[in-house]
Amino acid sequence: MDRPVGIAVVGAGYWGPNLIRNFSAARNTRLSWVCDVDAERARQSVAAWGDVQTTSDLGEALEDPAVEAVAIATPAASHADLALQVIDAGRHILIEKPLARTMEEGRAIVEAARARDLVVMVDHTFCYTAPVRMIREVVQSGELGELLFFDSVRINLGLIQHDIDVFWDLAPHDLSILDFILPPQARPVQVAAHAADPLGVGHACVGYLTVHLANGAIAHVHVNWLSPTKIRTTIIGGTRRMVVWDDLHPSQKISVHDTGVALNDELVGESRRETLVSYRIGDIVAPALPTTEALRLVVEEFADAIRGNRPALTDGEAGLRVLAMLAAVEQSLRNGGAMVSVEDMLGNVT
Amino acid sequence: MDRPVGIAVVGAGYWGPNLIRNFSAARNTRLSWVCDVDAERARQSVAAWGDVQTTSDLGEALEDPAVEAVAIATPAASHADLALQVIDAGRHILIEKPLARTMEEGRAIVEAARARDLVVMVDHTFCYTAPVRMIREVVQSGELGELLFFDSVRINLGLIQHDIDVFWDLAPHDLSILDFILPPQARPVQVAAHAADPLGVGHACVGYLTVHLANGAIAHVHVNWLSPTKIRTTIIGGTRRMVVWDDLHPSQKISVHDTGVALNDELVGESRRETLVSYRIGDIVAPALPTTEALRLVVEEFADAIRGNRPALTDGEAGLRVLAMLAAVEQSLRNGGAMVSVEDMLGNVT
Amino acid sequence: MDRPVGIAVVGAGYWGPNLIRNFSAARNTRLSWVCDVDAERARQSVAAWGDVQTTSDLGEALEDPAVEAVAIATPAASHADLALQVIDAGRHILIEKPLARTMEEGRAIVEAARARDLVVMVDHTFCYTAPVRMIREVVQSGELGELLFFDSVRINLGLIQHDIDVFWDLAPHDLSILDFILPPQARPVQVAAHAADPLGVGHACVGYLTVHLANGAIAHVHVNWLSPTKIRTTIIGGTRRMVVWDDLHPSQKISVHDTGVALNDELVGESRRETLVSYRIGDIVAPALPTTEALRLVVEEFADAIRGNRPALTDGEAGLRVLAMLAAVEQSLRNGGAMVSVEDMLGNVT
Amino acid sequence: MDRPVGIAVVGAGYWGPNLIRNFSAARNTRLSWVCDVDAERARQSVAAWGDVQTTSDLGEALEDPAVEAVAIATPAASHADLALQVIDAGRHILIEKPLARTMEEGRAIVEAARARDLVVMVDHTFCYTAPVRMIREVVQSGELGELLFFDSVRINLGLIQHDIDVFWDLAPHDLSILDFILPPQARPVQVAAHAADPLGVGHACVGYLTVHLANGAIAHVHVNWLSPTKIRTTIIGGTRRMVVWDDLHPSQKISVHDTGVALNDELVGESRRETLVSYRIGDIVAPALPTTEALRLVVEEFADAIRGNRPALTDGEAGLRVLAMLAAVEQSLRNGGAMVSVEDMLGNVT
Repeated sequence: MDRPVGIAVVGAGYWGPNLIRNFSAARNTRLSWVCDVDAERARQSVAAWGDVQTTSDLGEALEDPAVEAVAIATPAASHADLALQVIDAGRHILIEKPLARTMEEGRAIVEAARARDLVVMVDHTFCYTAPVRMIREVVQSGELGELLFFDSVRINLGLIQHDIDVFWDLAPHDLSILDFILPPQARPVQVAAHAADPLGVGHACVGYLTVHLANGAIAHVHVNWLSPTKIRTTIIGGTRRMVVWDDLHPSQKISVHDTGVALNDELVGESRRETLVSYRIGDIVAPALPTTEALRLVVEEFADAIRGNRPALTDGEAGLRVLAMLAAVEQSLRNGGAMVSVEDMLGNVT
Repeated sequence: MDRPVGIAVVGAGYWGPNLIRNFSAARNTRLSWVCDVDAERARQSVAAWGDVQTTSDLGEALEDPAVEAVAIATPAASHADLALQVIDAGRHILIEKPLARTMEEGRAIVEAARARDLVVMVDHTFCYTAPVRMIREVVQSGELGELLFFDSVRINLGLIQHDIDVFWDLAPHDLSILDFILPPQARPVQVAAHAADPLGVGHACVGYLTVHLANGAIAHVHVNWLSPTKIRTTIIGGTRRMVVWDDLHPSQKISVHDTGVALNDELVGESRRETLVSYRIGDIVAPALPTTEALRLVVEEFADAIRGNRPALTDGEAGLRVLAMLAAVEQSLRNGGAMVSVEDMLGNVT
Repeated sequence: MDRPVGIAVVGAGYWGPNLIRNFSAARNTRLSWVCDVDAERARQSVAAWGDVQTTSDLGEALEDPAVEAVAIATPAASHADLALQVIDAGRHILIEKPLARTMEEGRAIVEAARARDLVVMVDHTFCYTAPVRMIREVVQSGELGELLFFDSVRINLGLIQHDIDVFWDLAPHDLSILDFILPPQARPVQVAAHAADPLGVGHACVGYLTVHLANGAIAHVHVNWLSPTKIRTTIIGGTRRMVVWDDLHPSQKISVHDTGVALNDELVGESRRETLVSYRIGDIVAPALPTTEALRLVVEEFADAIRGNRPALTDGEAGLRVLAMLAAVEQSLRNGGAMVSVEDMLGNVT
Repeated sequence: MDRPVGIAVVGAGYWGPNLIRNFSAARNTRLSWVCDVDAERARQSVAAWGDVQTTSDLGEALEDPAVEAVAIATPAASHADLALQVIDAGRHILIEKPLARTMEEGRAIVEAARARDLVVMVDHTFCYTAPVRMIREVVQSGELGELLFFDSVRINLGLIQHDIDVFWDLAPHDLSILDFILPPQARPVQVAAHAADPLGVGHACVGYLTVHLANGAIAHVHVNWLSPTKIRTTIIGGTRRMVVWDDLHPSQKISVHDTGVALNDELVGESRRETLVSYRIGDIVAPALPTTEALRLVVEEFADAIRGNRPALTDGEAGLRVLAMLAAVEQSLRNGGAMVSVEDMLGNVT
């Protein structure tokens, strides 16, 4: 087995402790440093994890040759500066979602890492949950047939953020999942968004976004901070299988419907009305799902990508593609719901 | 009590028999004639209902002075011609939804009836169901507070229609409900729509439509013929109450959440993040709902409007407003999801 | 294909019309006569079904040689007299559940038919529904492993019967299902029952019955007329599979859990506590179920048994076994919940 | 406000740490000592809670005059000895459920404390949860009307215990809840139990127990370690209200049905069948429930009872009554499901 990857974590606030716990416990990483502007918070965060050094100065950690890679769990606005400092120091990098606040910042990170041949991974945690890995498998193995639609609802009576709207708060989950499971022929082409701010907080609290896909299918996401009932349901329709993911179901999160739909090309004329489309309805299977914590898989994938000298499953490009869709949402909202080209957003990066 | 209103029903196909049964049984109507191009079908449709005459010629029924009003249950394409013939003969009219296939036809019907001072009612059946009447009461009484959003999902593995898309098939339900419950200050302003035809049937099979409302709130409808799971859920958020209507729930279709949300205007500065919005979460009440058949209430409202010489609850204007939103959907789809003004669609009618 | 079996139906009240409709439509029966003490009700019941004769005198129908078999859909108290008259006339017989009101009556019917080599079938309709046939297949194929328990809940705000208690009203469903699916090694051995009549109507309105099975497993049924919430759920646990049947679920009535449980015989001593039993938790499969009406299968099975000169799937013996459990419930209630031997109840019949 | 009650906790295993946390945080207690036979475990258990002394010798803690009361969180078999030692030292006592393993032990504890005028409280935690407090309020206020039945299902694929059966493992929850909510006129009179051990582990894994109540109502509990599906539902029927408590529901644990049922005494004769009982079906209310941790209320009630010199809400008598029902279950199982008098079990204690 490979030598564990030496890790520094930057940011010991909301999400940092989860990274610290998992880097401490994972089979192929070794946590060496935790940095936080609040030195006391850094110290407390490692109390339970033995021999880890702390600092309020990232530079100090980067001087330690044991640090091969850095995980950044600070607010998005600081991602670009910190990431470039890390890359400049020749270290691999794991960044909390979203990759950055703007496409320009995101591109700068990805390009700097590419120039130094370093791994950039984005912590799209949901992609490492058992339901999403199962959905990806069903879609990409061809078991689903052709993708017809992807519909996701993520609504709740939620904490209304002060500095970001409901799209930036919730949609990165759905968009990173979408990016993760889509087959190449169904890549996002255009994005349009509609929203409301009915309380006058200054930005969208209820949002709908549509993504037109290259194969003629459609993806749609409903995010909402004002719903009295909590729903986290994603439905993925295919020509040979359909999947319903109800993340709040206590015992049956994933239902794979052996349901197919086909256009009856050969039948026309008189009888066409009845025979336009034929359905096949079969069993529903709710697979037993592994219970490994998603974040454990994130940190192990990060280390494996570094040791294997290969891109991570959710690499900087994936982060850019998600960022491009979020940027397209912003532009669409500014332009009255107009469709925005994802390719134009991505520019010449990919 | 008033003398019952003499009725002729035109069209004994899919929906006609339901009208026939209810006009026969209602307290304030008397069914006299059933007309159908298929004379045999007309005869069979009245077998159980005693003394009703049948014909394949609407003109014959209109010669009978006992006929004071006519209900049209034929395909939408024939509504305008039939309705104008009925109005020309001085009879009141009840028309299946949608009122007509185009705004021009719809306007012609409404204006002709207005000129003759006749009742035009559209059979928006859902508006007469117990859940929708309850929702309207909650919204219009002010109990809901200010409307924040209206979100409706109507999806299923459905019969794919040959001649109309999924919006024309399913959205009239949601749009007529929306029109029925909205308070005046939240009238529809703009509509945008996105859709997909991933099987290549020739029109939309998966559709999303957004309606921006005058008070800054938003309405959204998801209609879908390709969903493996059937959902018919509408959520209406207000500042003082929120309502969840799950039409498939066996015992608790309506849940009124005593949940409120308010912007904390007075709090600014340092602490603004935490206190931007405050929630109040109270009891949920699932009211016992009456079980009267909705269509019975439709036909009784029609007769009451005629005898009372007043507009019906879902009158021709309501039919035009729904038609305007459907027409706006069509135009938005043709223009890449662009927003379309509902007022422009309605023109100078209202 | 065999010549259709000529049928007379006795009783055109609550259940009779369903038999009439199915005997008229089935592939292998021909309905010839309907008898009811109310001659007018008999006539109305066949109005839609063409060439069927009616009478208020069963004797008249039995004179017609076209009548090969008779279905009895009258109150249970009249079953014995009518059945013996039919058997005496040499006709096969289908009897509504329960077979009779007492074991003595039931035995008389079964023995008379045996002496004349006639088919006696009991209309345990639930046994012919898709969920129950599926459960029987899972149990009897061995897929379930050893049966551990059978638990059924059938509760509702129900119509409180005047002449029978909640066990006689509802438990025949559960007991006939239990009888239908049990493997031979798990035959019912003892029955005990507890009940309450908290409103003072004169008999049990809330009832619990336990059936101890020969293999050490247990079956239990909860029937209740006073429950504010409707539940119809049966859980069957086995060592290799477990089945949950929720008859009110709109889309997933049967869930087959690939869940197993095994005693760890070999592990003893210190570690025994943790390893007493081991579980295996696998996928859940909700099979697509056929939608054929159960009663259609009942009448076809009746005709097939007659033509095949073989016992019906739910024959007189099955009827007696269910009756024995109901009689045991009665005796247990009279004796303060004491256990009553099912074998003693059955006597020397089987 | 009163001076906080000085506390020693005995047992730092499974449940102890929860007591330690709550005694540390409660408004009216002060945690002074933690005792555990494993001194190291005792030390670790207080690491986060500041100035608390630890010992492996309860006697050492009892020498400290700051200790006014002791909480015992050790296995049930040790309760009696420890409790008598504590009482002998003149300290009040809180004991984990069940109070003891036998009625004799339980009585000894209660009588010793009574002789010294000390508080004995049993930690029936469930009685302090918001749903149970709400149910008690509905029952005891008279809002429910007369109690008709209490039905509880607590089933799961559970850890099969080595030393106790499924009744002792799970039913104390249901029986302590039953004892807590019952009005005086509905006190338990007789208990009967049936069970199975289909895997041959040596004791019951599936159990059903019936409690006949003094007012003619019935209580029933289903406990099961072998169910593939987890259910924790209690239904309480009354003549004026009915309550459904689904403890696994994510958002609506309690539903109070405004449903009533009444015997129509005055109607007899011909029409009696239809009018035996009349129902009233009204709204369902799901009250918003407070989220205070139940165990916090337990420890505060303990301290309040001590300072108030009054019995605790779940006092030693309540512990004895629950123990009597468990003992009755054991005796009923030994006697083939025979009914056992609860009063005889309680003897002359109450």
